[in-house]
Amino acid sequence: MAVVIPFSPADATIDRLVDLLAADMQRVNTEILARTGSEVTMIPEVANHLISSGGKRLRPMLTLAMASLTGYEGDGHIKLAAAVEFMHTATLLHDDVVDESDLRRGRPAARKLWGNEASVLVGDFLLGQAFKMMVEVGSMRALEILSHAAAVIAEGEVMQLGAAKNTATTEDEYLAVIRAKTAELFAAACEVGPVLTQRPKAEAAACRSFGMNLGIAFQLVDDALDYGGKSAKLGKNIGDDFREGKITLPVVLSFRRGSEGEREFWTRVLEHGDATESDLETAVGLMSKHRALEDTIKRAQHYGAIARDALALFPASEMKQALEEAVEFCTARTH
Amino acid sequence: MAVVIPFSPADATIDRLVDLLAADMQRVNTEILARTGSEVTMIPEVANHLISSGGKRLRPMLTLAMASLTGYEGDGHIKLAAAVEFMHTATLLHDDVVDESDLRRGRPAARKLWGNEASVLVGDFLLGQAFKMMVEVGSMRALEILSHAAAVIAEGEVMQLGAAKNTATTEDEYLAVIRAKTAELFAAACEVGPVLTQRPKAEAAACRSFGMNLGIAFQLVDDALDYGGKSAKLGKNIGDDFREGKITLPVVLSFRRGSEGEREFWTRVLEHGDATESDLETAVGLMSKHRALEDTIKRAQHYGAIARDALALFPASEMKQALEEAVEFCTARTH
Repeated sequence: MAVVIPFSPADATIDRLVDLLAADMQRVNTEILARTGSEVTMIPEVANHLISSGGKRLRPMLTLAMASLTGYEGDGHIKLAAAVEFMHTATLLHDDVVDESDLRRGRPAARKLWGNEASVLVGDFLLGQAFKMMVEVGSMRALEILSHAAAVIAEGEVMQLGAAKNTATTEDEYLAVIRAKTAELFAAACEVGPVLTQRPKAEAAACRSFGMNLGIAFQLVDDALDYGGKSAKLGKNIGDDFREGKITLPVVLSFRRGSEGEREFWTRVLEHGDATESDLETAVGLMSKHRALEDTIKRAQHYGAIARDALALFPASEMKQALEEAVEFCTARTH
Repeated sequence: MAVVIPFSPADATIDRLVDLLAADMQRVNTEILARTGSEVTMIPEVANHLISSGGKRLRPMLTLAMASLTGYEGDGHIKLAAAVEFMHTATLLHDDVVDESDLRRGRPAARKLWGNEASVLVGDFLLGQAFKMMVEVGSMRALEILSHAAAVIAEGEVMQLGAAKNTATTEDEYLAVIRAKTAELFAAACEVGPVLTQRPKAEAAACRSFGMNLGIAFQLVDDALDYGGKSAKLGKNIGDDFREGKITLPVVLSFRRGSEGEREFWTRVLEHGDATESDLETAVGLMSKHRALEDTIKRAQHYGAIARDALALFPASEMKQALEEAVEFCTARTH
């Protein structure tokens, strides 16, 4: 079942971004810890289980990075970054309930330890806390961007609910789903950075475009990794999407490019939900035959290139270089 | 199983409030319909199933009433009232998932028709839309009040999750739960009314106090009705709370006032979840013996009286009279 995905260069990292933002991220982490506090002890337990589980915290880093790129010197970016991470965490808690997932980042999903009820409600709590932090920052424009994102993300999730079992989903339809459910939060996380600095609209638009396209690329790579990544590092099993009947781009491409018989296979295993482990091997074989994983990565690289160009109007700086490397990392990561 | 709850006066109504606010409520309803629109057709379907199911819309009416009481003449109260109703609807959608309820307002719960997934996600969507509307109104203070309420409500729900099966819950602990999960939204709905009018702080505090105490009274009456109301009108079955093992004030009082043997009964049927229909009859019998329903209503009337006094600093007006009648209605309603 070994599939070679043409990642390149193999050694791309986000180390530079992490280093440049280390001091600010420390403050974000402190804020996050403070805001999950509650006398209702189940709240910090559930929240911290997920928050401390070693996610990359890419989204809050993007908020900090964009604030820095556009010369922000205040404090507001810390709370906005924490709010972005809370919105993301709330989404993950609800997603795991909706998808009935057992694992998240290599650990049992919160719903397996505390139940679906707690996952739904702690998600709601974190969303409330996120909005409280935004209000404290006091930027109506940041509130507008992030509340819009909250609605769009939920809309995207519902959209996916409808599309979940339709193997005839087009690539465009699939892109509309991931724009909403993944890329919108990347875009909003980036867009609120320059908002605090009162910079020209063109800069906010550039930051938003960077985030949107990076988010799409990030999700497409995730889709490919589910059929060919390294399970231990990814924190989810190879074939999770397959077993859940999720229609992702590798499936969309394989279905379109397949024969009549192959399409019947996809319909049977994904729409009717009677897939076996040997079906997973067949699926990976068909993806290999039709170069579906390679082309999913190529699509991701296309969006990565757009993200990189979006930053062109900013003068050269170490932060800009770090963001360019982050794009490289997101499209070349193997976990 | 007939229990006489000493409601008085029997003919209290909210007709005057409804009449006074009819024109504004029409605009709120239009706003609500517009904001549930989405190309993702499942969203308006799920949202409107619940929104059009004949709830009293008490919470948005309170926002409108308080805006009027404090002399507001702008437009912002319409969107804030719609946002309050969306927050309430989102909570109901999530509650039904958490409580595994089958019925809501006498109709199948959304989760029975569209699944838990859709209920969670459409709730998230409505919460996002609520915040978008608040942002459009542009009052940072209103955003602060309502985002705080969102966090407190979720916190209260999680608190209840922990308390759900503990028959030894004290009355104070129970009150803390309903303050958070029910009364806080009533309080916030009332408090945002005067915020728009830039009236003195004392008026906002009075409105908040009115809402908080009315909300507590409303929930306590709801608790009593679950053991003695008219099921057709209430839209839920007599004994729903009992079958779900919910610890409400009638149970708290009966447990405290009961004998050792009676306490064992409550623990068995509510904590261990093996209640039968004849257990429900026993439960109602014990409540009757200990006057638990009557005293729950008396407690509600206590909070109703505080709510009425909170309005004392406003001069006499038809709106003030309508709000006083609304308190009467909430503590005397039989459905």
